[in-house]
Amino acid sequence: MSSLPKIASIGFVGVGIMGQSMAGHLLAAGYQVHVYNRTKSKTDALIAKGATWHDTPGAVAAQSDLIITMVGFPSDVEEVYFGENGIIASAKEAILVDMTTSSPSLARKIAQEAAKKGLASIDAPVSGGDIGARDAKLTIMVGGEQAVFNHVLPVLQKLGTSIILQGGPGMGQHTKMCNQIVIASTIMGVAEGLSYAKKVGLDPAQVLQSIGGGAASGFQLNVLGAKMIIGDYAPGFYVEHFIKDLKIALSEAEQMNLALPGLSLAKSLFEKMAAKGLQRNGTQGIFQIYID
Amino acid sequence: MSSLPKIASIGFVGVGIMGQSMAGHLLAAGYQVHVYNRTKSKTDALIAKGATWHDTPGAVAAQSDLIITMVGFPSDVEEVYFGENGIIASAKEAILVDMTTSSPSLARKIAQEAAKKGLASIDAPVSGGDIGARDAKLTIMVGGEQAVFNHVLPVLQKLGTSIILQGGPGMGQHTKMCNQIVIASTIMGVAEGLSYAKKVGLDPAQVLQSIGGGAASGFQLNVLGAKMIIGDYAPGFYVEHFIKDLKIALSEAEQMNLALPGLSLAKSLFEKMAAKGLQRNGTQGIFQIYID
Repeated sequence: MSSLPKIASIGFVGVGIMGQSMAGHLLAAGYQVHVYNRTKSKTDALIAKGATWHDTPGAVAAQSDLIITMVGFPSDVEEVYFGENGIIASAKEAILVDMTTSSPSLARKIAQEAAKKGLASIDAPVSGGDIGARDAKLTIMVGGEQAVFNHVLPVLQKLGTSIILQGGPGMGQHTKMCNQIVIASTIMGVAEGLSYAKKVGLDPAQVLQSIGGGAASGFQLNVLGAKMIIGDYAPGFYVEHFIKDLKIALSEAEQMNLALPGLSLAKSLFEKMAAKGLQRNGTQGIFQIYID
Repeated sequence: MSSLPKIASIGFVGVGIMGQSMAGHLLAAGYQVHVYNRTKSKTDALIAKGATWHDTPGAVAAQSDLIITMVGFPSDVEEVYFGENGIIASAKEAILVDMTTSSPSLARKIAQEAAKKGLASIDAPVSGGDIGARDAKLTIMVGGEQAVFNHVLPVLQKLGTSIILQGGPGMGQHTKMCNQIVIASTIMGVAEGLSYAKKVGLDPAQVLQSIGGGAASGFQLNVLGAKMIIGDYAPGFYVEHFIKDLKIALSEAEQMNLALPGLSLAKSLFEKMAAKGLQRNGTQGIFQIYID
């Protein structure tokens, strides 16, 4: 790795709901921000605030000391890093920061290919959703080298409040997988408990009052369970993205010979939702599988 | 139902860890307390504080305006209510309050048999464990008639802080089942997430720092997950009692034609623990199934 560049200009590739907020915080902090997004119109608000548009991820990378990617699927990550006009080919003395929730193996591949070109990189997936992004209170789980982490920390601190280096390349992604694995079975349990309540003739809202303060309590029950009860399936987190994450986690677990039957089961239920055309609902929509 | 009695004397059948604390609060509140327990020595401390020992549940019932039962399994509930020298045969103008986590069907049977004798009754299982019992901060989920609920509320308020009438006879037990159903899959998810962390070479305690404040957060992850990480399997809640609860919930769900695959799976994992002789560990011991 060459010496780490002073960070004045930041590239942002992928400005969906979360990315727009995040890039906005970086602009507000005084960085020069270069943006690319598959759908150009989503960059309009950022350009109005001073960001510079480029036609390809590679063109963004060529102008940036640090490049953040926040796209959808691992295939999108592959594309923006390794595709035609991609980041790896065009970046110069830059630091690559993939904040997409993506595969740990791909994170290691990016780190290796970046290193070959003398580029530093970290994987830094987040949790906290659109609200966490808007309020700059994301949890950021980082994999990479300590020196690189230290160098980019001031940038990450514009985006999140819990920022932990969890290990070497890929370990940020692995930590995010732990998060998704816990959530997968938890939301299944919430849906099962509340569907039992409904089926047996209890008032689920009143049941939540009883059980929401004890050993069953948590974000999934108290926030998403409350949405299930009122039939609010608007996405905080899309089912189709969750299925993507659960597939990555299962694939990694299989490679380690680790059986995760709860995760397998939860994934099959979310796939059942997708098969019904419900993949653009929020994850709390798993309730629909039980009550329909 | 005859008119509801003024409550001066309270019977307490079953003074295990939780029952001892609860009966102690009632003594402290000035009630006359009559006690029976299968193992007599467990009543010693209460007797020293002024409680009166009786040789059978029936003898307790004959002296009490309100009788609380807090025993282990539905078979124990059957025994103390309907067995030789049981409560139903001996109670006179009393109110029966089963606080054991037991089957909703059995709760309805108790209510029916009590009514035939002109006795009032409620089912009132709790959550909050030994600490909730000790601090009189239990969650109490009640099934029964409103008038009976209102009448016994001042007694229950000596034991808990969240006390809600959820419906008619059996509905307290059904509410507790909702709680256990949510917990069953949740703790499975926590064990899976942390076993993934361990297997992949992350520091699970550091992972918990990242994921314990977000969408995965909750009592099961933050309290019991933390115990898994340090290998502390001391029981807050025994696996053997949890299996009992999950069997009741599954049986009730089957009767309603409600498929709860997460619950079925979690139950099978806890049974695997029991088959290994780990049934007296706490529920967080499910982690042992994954890491062994």
